[in-house]
Amino acid sequence: MCRWNAYFGQPLAIEELLFKTKHSLIDQSLHSTRGVETTNGDGFGIGWYPADGGAPRRYRSLNPMWSDQNLQDLAAEIRSPLFLAHIRATTGTPVQQVNSHPFKHGKWLFVHNGVITDFHTTRRELLLAVDPTLFEGIHGSTDSETLFYLALTFGLETDPLGAVERAVGFVEQVGHAHGIEHPIQMTLGISDGERLYAIRYSSLGQSRTLYVSCDAAAVRALYPDNARFQHLTDEDRIVVSEPLNEDLPGVWQEVPEATALIIQPGADEQVPFSPVAASLAHAGPSH
Amino acid sequence: MCRWNAYFGQPLAIEELLFKTKHSLIDQSLHSTRGVETTNGDGFGIGWYPADGGAPRRYRSLNPMWSDQNLQDLAAEIRSPLFLAHIRATTGTPVQQVNSHPFKHGKWLFVHNGVITDFHTTRRELLLAVDPTLFEGIHGSTDSETLFYLALTFGLETDPLGAVERAVGFVEQVGHAHGIEHPIQMTLGISDGERLYAIRYSSLGQSRTLYVSCDAAAVRALYPDNARFQHLTDEDRIVVSEPLNEDLPGVWQEVPEATALIIQPGADEQVPFSPVAASLAHAGPSH
Amino acid sequence: MCRWNAYFGQPLAIEELLFKTKHSLIDQSLHSTRGVETTNGDGFGIGWYPADGGAPRRYRSLNPMWSDQNLQDLAAEIRSPLFLAHIRATTGTPVQQVNSHPFKHGKWLFVHNGVITDFHTTRRELLLAVDPTLFEGIHGSTDSETLFYLALTFGLETDPLGAVERAVGFVEQVGHAHGIEHPIQMTLGISDGERLYAIRYSSLGQSRTLYVSCDAAAVRALYPDNARFQHLTDEDRIVVSEPLNEDLPGVWQEVPEATALIIQPGADEQVPFSPVAASLAHAGPSH
Amino acid sequence: MCRWNAYFGQPLAIEELLFKTKHSLIDQSLHSTRGVETTNGDGFGIGWYPADGGAPRRYRSLNPMWSDQNLQDLAAEIRSPLFLAHIRATTGTPVQQVNSHPFKHGKWLFVHNGVITDFHTTRRELLLAVDPTLFEGIHGSTDSETLFYLALTFGLETDPLGAVERAVGFVEQVGHAHGIEHPIQMTLGISDGERLYAIRYSSLGQSRTLYVSCDAAAVRALYPDNARFQHLTDEDRIVVSEPLNEDLPGVWQEVPEATALIIQPGADEQVPFSPVAASLAHAGPSH
Repeated sequence: MCRWNAYFGQPLAIEELLFKTKHSLIDQSLHSTRGVETTNGDGFGIGWYPADGGAPRRYRSLNPMWSDQNLQDLAAEIRSPLFLAHIRATTGTPVQQVNSHPFKHGKWLFVHNGVITDFHTTRRELLLAVDPTLFEGIHGSTDSETLFYLALTFGLETDPLGAVERAVGFVEQVGHAHGIEHPIQMTLGISDGERLYAIRYSSLGQSRTLYVSCDAAAVRALYPDNARFQHLTDEDRIVVSEPLNEDLPGVWQEVPEATALIIQPGADEQVPFSPVAASLAHAGPSH
Repeated sequence: MCRWNAYFGQPLAIEELLFKTKHSLIDQSLHSTRGVETTNGDGFGIGWYPADGGAPRRYRSLNPMWSDQNLQDLAAEIRSPLFLAHIRATTGTPVQQVNSHPFKHGKWLFVHNGVITDFHTTRRELLLAVDPTLFEGIHGSTDSETLFYLALTFGLETDPLGAVERAVGFVEQVGHAHGIEHPIQMTLGISDGERLYAIRYSSLGQSRTLYVSCDAAAVRALYPDNARFQHLTDEDRIVVSEPLNEDLPGVWQEVPEATALIIQPGADEQVPFSPVAASLAHAGPSH
Repeated sequence: MCRWNAYFGQPLAIEELLFKTKHSLIDQSLHSTRGVETTNGDGFGIGWYPADGGAPRRYRSLNPMWSDQNLQDLAAEIRSPLFLAHIRATTGTPVQQVNSHPFKHGKWLFVHNGVITDFHTTRRELLLAVDPTLFEGIHGSTDSETLFYLALTFGLETDPLGAVERAVGFVEQVGHAHGIEHPIQMTLGISDGERLYAIRYSSLGQSRTLYVSCDAAAVRALYPDNARFQHLTDEDRIVVSEPLNEDLPGVWQEVPEATALIIQPGADEQVPFSPVAASLAHAGPSH
Repeated sequence: MCRWNAYFGQPLAIEELLFKTKHSLIDQSLHSTRGVETTNGDGFGIGWYPADGGAPRRYRSLNPMWSDQNLQDLAAEIRSPLFLAHIRATTGTPVQQVNSHPFKHGKWLFVHNGVITDFHTTRRELLLAVDPTLFEGIHGSTDSETLFYLALTFGLETDPLGAVERAVGFVEQVGHAHGIEHPIQMTLGISDGERLYAIRYSSLGQSRTLYVSCDAAAVRALYPDNARFQHLTDEDRIVVSEPLNEDLPGVWQEVPEATALIIQPGADEQVPFSPVAASLAHAGPSH
């Protein structure tokens, strides 16, 4: 059910990640090895922050990533210090551009791998909880977009991790009220253009895989002959649903269960992720 | 903002209406003469009732009708006693299959030409009014689909015209509460497979055009040499946004303002259409 | 590199083959078990002969078969005594409707699973050999469509199997002249609406898989409790790249290497398939 | 039958031409005022030379330009000193990405507005004349792509205008041999990344419209208060099928009949365009 990549660091042409790695997203779109589905062919999307600043931009497509005729030229053209790419395997909602990730609001981008369990039974209640002033921005029909708008409703723009903890807590609370045992399964990639948040969590405690590239200095030391790695700076980080190569030990580190990474200028942070019960007062009819 | 056709009568290949008339929908998709927009190229859809009974079926496309490569073969294949075809000119929501008409619920099909004015300001409130048990069926983001689900909420399946009058009354009430002077503009085509309802109405009192073919006997008498017309039976009726030909006086009759037609086996009916204020008790948070 | 199915027999709704079998084409589009590629998501097509006679019709799509939003309704609507369905995994040429099988010429339909090896080096020479009066019908860029037009050039309409033997012989001859060791790999499904030709051949002698359903009487006797099988008549035949179920021994019979089946009213035939060297003189006035 | 724009000058975001002008290409896609067809909704394409050099890149789409959901972000992202944009109104060949302009070969881009008359009767003969070593690059089925490959065959890369004169002469010669009175109608935009060639010609002597922006100094003097114009340098040039605004006299200059412009660093040139009879000997070894 979807795979994604994110990059944070010195400006990089998107093709470096999408086309010039062994087990790239394009390869994963046909042959995912660690996902729930081996094929992720239900559209894709890329969101990036322009190298010269400003609001994030997107390219989203109905096509499988492997057969998109524009992607190669666009991925060569676009250089960005921060981007997210996502390939979709639908869990039931239609294949259409507005259902392709990343979702966008102002300077925020959002990608999701996973599912809100039995979303058809909780969709209306979750949508109702979205802040009415934000509601107009919802264009698709996915659980992922609803989760994004809940996070915005619960304060994503001022307290990103807290807001996601409240949004996920709310989803679990609504799910449990409907007798759903494990209401959510997710890895998330979220950014405001300055930080990249990568979160791994599931109600079940067995979340989709998520990896982050190791410290650049360590990687360079491990592979002194790899020219690509010698260009890595200590700020460069890649977050991936599946490692971009399997044969280079020491390059990828698994993100632990129920954990959030904050990738940012200077030292990154790793903190526990704990959903919290959120009051309905944050949203609903009174707005 | 869209054009549509509907047919009720002896089983007919869809191509007869779509391809074998002078000013067919395909022609209107490029050169609408009486619509607000001359181009209706934002996708299209056809819904039909199978000749041997059962639930209605649909073919919907992202493409302009004039360039769809499958339509000619499908329109030759499909014979139906009751079908609706719709070409879209979006008023802002994305071009995608789930936004193409007809919308479907059980045995009901629904097409709309027009607009709910300033829908972005009233969308959430209108969606909230949809019966929670129906909500799951909403897959797109258009004003038209919302209007259909409001009609279902207000009783379309048991009292079709009454339900539409209540739904439109509700839309006007919500619109007025938001300071919108003329909240709705519409022609509607609605069917349950047994009757075809064609409604023309707008808050402004200047509605989109709508025409119905005249009594077959009259048409045959007017054009004794027209072979196609000699096959018409008294039950066959065509409803159109724009006449399929302009050069045959007496064939098309304009549907009056604020009027509903009921096309059915036996005598058809024509009744006034008057929106009525509808209580929120039909819907909303208590469900 | 593609999978296909064909049906010959009493009129059948296409959904019976596409949706109501265990390992249907739709399932194979995601999880082919015997093909070269496990994913066949580069568009698809269906061609059928109308139940009331006349030229064949087609529905072709850019989408993967698994996510096409129209297919279910169309497959329920269309009943046909003879149809072919094909899912594509491109070997390099673009994903576009004109590259989706079946190809059509007059009353003929044609599907291909396999490849003309190194087609980019022989394409021009093969196209040049196509009869100039047929050339205009070529709309796409695939090896498969070129093979179809070569078969037409070499007499498909009057001597179907002989023409394909000459066309394949010509492809091998041109390939060998370019130093290509094994110029062709194929299973073909071809029909004129009266007979269904199924051919399995490759220059290498290790062809793509192909199966045909066994004699209906035998199948009914094997599975007396299977209601679906009790409706089979002795004329009904299904040809498939992969069995539609793996758990029913005795239902599917492999088509031998270098063999052509002729499925027709009355007794079917099975004959050897031997490409023959073909003179360029077949290929139009200018040569 | 299509409209196009081209830009040559200081690096410019593509959105400046596509979105920030009054009668932009997007507007022309719905309401062309000087074209043969008012609607140009059969796909579109943009080709550009990267600001930092290298081969040209493209974005091509099946959608009408007015409804493409990615174009706005891409047009804001891409800055280029030389680009061509084209909207298509098909004259019969399918709407598909490979039929969208610009066509590309190495460092060359090519757009065409017009038609090779009765192309279906001359297509094979024209294709045969394409150099066999170039043939592999033909992916679509349009007259325009064939014209481009003929120009390449006749020496576009070493003698651009001469090659086009020979290619057009050849098309006229083949056309006349088939009894076609006026074999070609065209405006062309061609570039190698260093120069932009704009050609207006038709066998009939009544060619599609083509305009070029006037000398920047003159424009600045005419409109001292227009901020956008004050940024124009003397090197900046825009070539358009239709003026981007109708209300600014002195800004656009019509390209005369049978004329080629060479827009380049330093003084531009304007020369007569005269097709010349071309020997088939140009067209590769086998002829």
